[in-house]
Amino acid sequence: MKRLIVFSLLILTLQIEALTIDGFSIRYCDGILQVLNQQKLPSEEDWIDVKTPDEMISIITSLKIRGAPMIGMAALFSLAQLAEKRMPIDEIEKTALALKASRPTAVNLSCYIERLLNAIKESQDPYLTILQIAEDVYLEDKHLCEAMGKTGSDLIQEGERILTYCNTGSLTTAGIGTAIGVIKTAYFEGKKIHVYVCETRPLLQGGRLTAWEMERFGIPYTLICDNMAGTLMKQGKIDRVLVGADRIAVNGDFANKIGTYSLAVLAHHHRIPFHVVAPYTTIDPACPNGDAIKIEERKTDEVRGASGSFGKVIWSPPNAPVYNPAFDVTPADLVESYILDRGCFSKEEFMR
Amino acid sequence: MKRLIVFSLLILTLQIEALTIDGFSIRYCDGILQVLNQQKLPSEEDWIDVKTPDEMISIITSLKIRGAPMIGMAALFSLAQLAEKRMPIDEIEKTALALKASRPTAVNLSCYIERLLNAIKESQDPYLTILQIAEDVYLEDKHLCEAMGKTGSDLIQEGERILTYCNTGSLTTAGIGTAIGVIKTAYFEGKKIHVYVCETRPLLQGGRLTAWEMERFGIPYTLICDNMAGTLMKQGKIDRVLVGADRIAVNGDFANKIGTYSLAVLAHHHRIPFHVVAPYTTIDPACPNGDAIKIEERKTDEVRGASGSFGKVIWSPPNAPVYNPAFDVTPADLVESYILDRGCFSKEEFMR
Repeated sequence: MKRLIVFSLLILTLQIEALTIDGFSIRYCDGILQVLNQQKLPSEEDWIDVKTPDEMISIITSLKIRGAPMIGMAALFSLAQLAEKRMPIDEIEKTALALKASRPTAVNLSCYIERLLNAIKESQDPYLTILQIAEDVYLEDKHLCEAMGKTGSDLIQEGERILTYCNTGSLTTAGIGTAIGVIKTAYFEGKKIHVYVCETRPLLQGGRLTAWEMERFGIPYTLICDNMAGTLMKQGKIDRVLVGADRIAVNGDFANKIGTYSLAVLAHHHRIPFHVVAPYTTIDPACPNGDAIKIEERKTDEVRGASGSFGKVIWSPPNAPVYNPAFDVTPADLVESYILDRGCFSKEEFMR
Repeated sequence: MKRLIVFSLLILTLQIEALTIDGFSIRYCDGILQVLNQQKLPSEEDWIDVKTPDEMISIITSLKIRGAPMIGMAALFSLAQLAEKRMPIDEIEKTALALKASRPTAVNLSCYIERLLNAIKESQDPYLTILQIAEDVYLEDKHLCEAMGKTGSDLIQEGERILTYCNTGSLTTAGIGTAIGVIKTAYFEGKKIHVYVCETRPLLQGGRLTAWEMERFGIPYTLICDNMAGTLMKQGKIDRVLVGADRIAVNGDFANKIGTYSLAVLAHHHRIPFHVVAPYTTIDPACPNGDAIKIEERKTDEVRGASGSFGKVIWSPPNAPVYNPAFDVTPADLVESYILDRGCFSKEEFMR
């Protein structure tokens, strides 16, 4: 019996030491958790020390971090902090549910939290389990990105001009990203590509973050307003559209940043291949189709103006009535193929 | 001979006295010309005293005033100032050509200037002619707006939800406007309508000016980002799309604010009627089709950020490569009908 306890403690110690990650936009070491503040980019690389899950919820809801896998991972590392402090498990479980509720559309967050809660129930050492799951999810997400990147890059031809939307790179995942991961893989394989980056109103994840990430990795790009994509397609200047996803239903319908649906319709009209790049963790087996996806509406001031590292500006009448859905749903009919970690699938293959 | 001179002077005096206009966004009285600074809206109603054509060119190129008829009228009143000062006619002609070159896409400007230059050549009293043409164009534009408004409003059903783009109202014309003129007419005829206003990146004419104009006239509206239009159409929340035009080719293709083409494709996909509202002055008989329309590219910083009464902000990397066409061309195939001052025409009727 004594031996067994020693053995168990040894594993715990080893595993805790192993829980050191030094990612592109998330770091964890000895219970210290830091995330890269996406709101300060591109003008400043500001790392936030996250001390409590309440702070993490505020960071998630205020979009200082965003991207479906990143939100999920950050929530897990926030719970890992509590595990290292040996907070009572029932309190950790309560906190996990609060974190899960912070953004309803992104499936990874709820999926990771469910995975954690189920594992805790079956675990003899729930603290260790929490740390293990945080690390597993991080390393797995990194490998998923590499797999998607390789699969997607096989489609990309020399000289292609690729349109992308929102930000789907190293700020949103543990690895190279989803849609941007494909772009990076193709570029670093030596293919001469050019990326058209949609600014992605209202929160400008394209104009602020993807443009910054393209510069950071030296990938040639051009920034456009979202409403210029159709004209570029008409001019024959876009060969392919690559987008990420926040939730994919089992019939292939998917939710992604508002504006994705319009791009899909435009690509369809111009017969340009339109691809969704996502890991299996984005597929929601409980979601039959796009109608079942709940779409958050966000704050009115986001549409009335813009905010970023420069502060906040309002350009409309101050009380202008606003519609501000965070996401839209694109039907599977408009998707040429799904670039997943386990390969590239047509919508017919996806639905099987 | 003496009698004739007296008679001519009398007409001149009468006509000059008649050249007093007190418009919504342009005023002229005794050689004093004022335009409403659209860049300061909606936070401030700032009237600019325009003293010279050079000032007017700078006002036009910096977009303090915009809208195809407004630019044309403002240029004429700027020349009227010179006529009142009895500047040599050859200098006025030279100035007219400089004004004409200040914005190449809008057809009204070049059309009005050509009309003026031709009339001067045939006139025995060119100074009087200049004043007369400025006044004629102003009054005519006002009547054209009323005619378009009536024609367009006849199409609008009770309860319709209308999507509009850019700003096409009293800031851009002498009267109630083109697309917004139709909306105003329907609203003041008592029809319960709701207007979805696209913000219109990069210069935000929808978010800043159309939203302000809707409030000013008490018309119910909702402001959206341009990339949300597709989702609203998919949800069945848009019954009709009304846009203006900067130049219409004889085959019905037309140039309008960048983003119009994408809306036309989206409306087509969702089988929503898409209408162009424009006076005959926007039709360019010398332009056979959309390929012949020259599209200006504007400054890179417009896409890198935004500017307005709050100043200027940049949210992208400071040297981000940018594509910034001011307009796009929509093919006639995507147009349900043309709402002109002389009636409503299908594209087949338009081309006859």
